[in-house]
Amino acid sequence: MSAASVHQGVVRLAGQVAREPNLDATAQTVAILETIDSLLEEAGSNKHLILFAQIFLADMADFPAMNVAWDAWVSRSDPPPRATVEGKLAVPGCTVEVVVTAAALD
Amino acid sequence: MSAASVHQGVVRLAGQVAREPNLDATAQTVAILETIDSLLEEAGSNKHLILFAQIFLADMADFPAMNVAWDAWVSRSDPPPRATVEGKLAVPGCTVEVVVTAAALD
Amino acid sequence: MSAASVHQGVVRLAGQVAREPNLDATAQTVAILETIDSLLEEAGSNKHLILFAQIFLADMADFPAMNVAWDAWVSRSDPPPRATVEGKLAVPGCTVEVVVTAAALD
Repeated sequence: MSAASVHQGVVRLAGQVAREPNLDATAQTVAILETIDSLLEEAGSNKHLILFAQIFLADMADFPAMNVAWDAWVSRSDPPPRATVEGKLAVPGCTVEVVVTAAALD
Repeated sequence: MSAASVHQGVVRLAGQVAREPNLDATAQTVAILETIDSLLEEAGSNKHLILFAQIFLADMADFPAMNVAWDAWVSRSDPPPRATVEGKLAVPGCTVEVVVTAAALD
Repeated sequence: MSAASVHQGVVRLAGQVAREPNLDATAQTVAILETIDSLLEEAGSNKHLILFAQIFLADMADFPAMNVAWDAWVSRSDPPPRATVEGKLAVPGCTVEVVVTAAALD
């Protein structure tokens, strides 16, 4: 699969998980968000232009730990709409997956 | 997080859950859909312009009860494409979450 | 619900499950992808124009079996970004659901 698609000013990223699993949910989220920063930059976007974020957690008990990393990272002036749901992920040891849709810069 | 983003004629709402949990799934869905009506109106859209709806249920046994409220609400002339999957939600007692993407009026 | 919406050059399909449940995950995925081919064609699109695919599996143990069908079908030159998560589905015996967003041809 591709890491991203860009169409008519909208960037859609593949679901991102931490490359190094078995870290706690905060550390996995920090790693994911660094990857998302890179992927958005490559696609001509950035975290301030996120239109929607879908977050999957293997265990909803990790919600506060994920939020620690999310809240430290997300645009304070314009935090995007978000939805979070629990669901087992494909990669063993990965407990957080983030799927981002963003606007592309002109 | 924000309740909505609007970009190039598309409104994306944050995942909506009932403010008052511990109601049955029909009542939670009714409350969610009232909120979605309000959020879409604020964003210059309405339920007849929904492009896609993602529904999460904490327990798939609530599918028929959710549908009672959905079917009474949704546009009869142009019901939007939809997907429903089971997954535990972030807020205890909330058993239904609805994520809507809609077209914005010009 | 509708099978698809088309708005400003973007096709959004309803979540697709196999019409014949109780097949293995590969066979269900093959059937789903045939349906998606048809729906995309009706909407003026095709699998090479998919912008994002969300896959739900009732049991993540089916991930390799789903991928057999997906990898044989998907555009090799431009495979779309994708996310896969486990979640129980609405139709008993259906173990795979695929939700596709695609670009429409001009």
